[in-house]
Amino acid sequence: MTTDQLVSQINQKKSFLCIGLDVDLNKIPRHLLELEDPIFEFNKAIIDATHHLCVAYKPNTAFYEAYGLKGWASLEKTIAYINKNHPEIFTVADAKRGDIGNTSSMYAKAFLEDLAFDSVTVAPYMGKDSVEPFLAFKDKHTILLALTSNKGAFDFQTQKINDKEVYKQVLETSKTWENSDNLMYVVGATKAEYFAEIRKIIPNSFLLVPGVGAQGGNLQDVCKFGLNDNVGLLINSSRGIIYASNENDFATAAASKAKELQTQMEAILK
Amino acid sequence: MTTDQLVSQINQKKSFLCIGLDVDLNKIPRHLLELEDPIFEFNKAIIDATHHLCVAYKPNTAFYEAYGLKGWASLEKTIAYINKNHPEIFTVADAKRGDIGNTSSMYAKAFLEDLAFDSVTVAPYMGKDSVEPFLAFKDKHTILLALTSNKGAFDFQTQKINDKEVYKQVLETSKTWENSDNLMYVVGATKAEYFAEIRKIIPNSFLLVPGVGAQGGNLQDVCKFGLNDNVGLLINSSRGIIYASNENDFATAAASKAKELQTQMEAILK
Repeated sequence: MTTDQLVSQINQKKSFLCIGLDVDLNKIPRHLLELEDPIFEFNKAIIDATHHLCVAYKPNTAFYEAYGLKGWASLEKTIAYINKNHPEIFTVADAKRGDIGNTSSMYAKAFLEDLAFDSVTVAPYMGKDSVEPFLAFKDKHTILLALTSNKGAFDFQTQKINDKEVYKQVLETSKTWENSDNLMYVVGATKAEYFAEIRKIIPNSFLLVPGVGAQGGNLQDVCKFGLNDNVGLLINSSRGIIYASNENDFATAAASKAKELQTQMEAILK
Repeated sequence: MTTDQLVSQINQKKSFLCIGLDVDLNKIPRHLLELEDPIFEFNKAIIDATHHLCVAYKPNTAFYEAYGLKGWASLEKTIAYINKNHPEIFTVADAKRGDIGNTSSMYAKAFLEDLAFDSVTVAPYMGKDSVEPFLAFKDKHTILLALTSNKGAFDFQTQKINDKEVYKQVLETSKTWENSDNLMYVVGATKAEYFAEIRKIIPNSFLLVPGVGAQGGNLQDVCKFGLNDNVGLLINSSRGIIYASNENDFATAAASKAKELQTQMEAILK
């Protein structure tokens, strides 16, 4: 998917919501556990109920790997279901991968080609040659971790290299990499005050913003400093939406929560 | 496995060799491709031929994920085969994971509990709460990326925070984390001159050292500066061993290459 197609979807749906499909079998409605593939059935119901309210889905691979082969099969079925039934939706493999060049190529092929995600999250620690194999895929996007939403972000990301925080060094350095037009960045919503400075470095890039909702981030604050002419934001919510209820009404409850956020987004876009 | 058990294995085998099981279907003997699970059959033959010469096996997860469900099944069979037939061997899931706390817990459970690896490699970028869920597993080891063996290591890892390189900050900060006794570190062999300084910060920790062989690192240089009283090194070789031949003799050719390294290690240990 091109960035233009993503922006056009945002304008059509009046939403820049990304829903995190982080399925924990301990948290989903008990009646689903009797089905052959509870994770996929849960995702399918969530997707059917929310696809008109969001522009992106983001399964975090940890939640699938935790169930071994069955989990991996559920991931394959989920992405195939989205690509077949809702090809307009932007998909994110939240995998946070990154390795030496020839190994990163294997990850890139797995997520962007075989599973056919539109994008994958990648960790910057190993530098240029660990990220460029992902960037090589045309009309695919590499979402680089810059400033994450957790407490540990202050351990290294906000430390200063030559009077400039590590996450800003990551933003600036990554702009020089080949096919850097295919870069987006993860920036946590829990630090809205940073968005203004980030926009000075990467005014045009899309930012994937976790941490709204369960992690305490505020949508208005993020938008105030983070929006650009192309919207430029994908706001993710996972637990706040998909676990709105764990009864039979879980899908409609998720849709209500998604509708709340979409309504706020529509107001902001005006 | 405890560190003491690992050290005792090293002394018994007179080897601190780790063999990387990075299986690429384009590089293995063609006759294996006719079998139902070529990746597992390749690994099994390599393991049967080399287990007395090495103390650790390290499958890199990228090479398994690249083959989807079948690849994941091959990984499961490989680790189960090692744990059943060679329980003395130290196993490393080279996964380079790392995420916010509750998500890292899912990865930790997947690799250390369900797949039952002895250790897993983890990226430090997201800080303390992204690593501690791995450290919580008793008698398991978290191998934190410090200084990697690729060119991109110079993009961020060797930049200075307060006059101290990022990788040294990672070493020092990580020592303060809960259960830090369960930490080991990845340090690339291509920078042997750094080992002396690293040993000042973490004199007792085990270092997993990639980059000997195909990536150009030198075993003697690394050992000169990296060995400690407990040996403290696991030297990894992947391509240099497992692809020594792609004919019918691939397993014995791999054993010859492993024997070469083991012999050098035995001399160094004296």
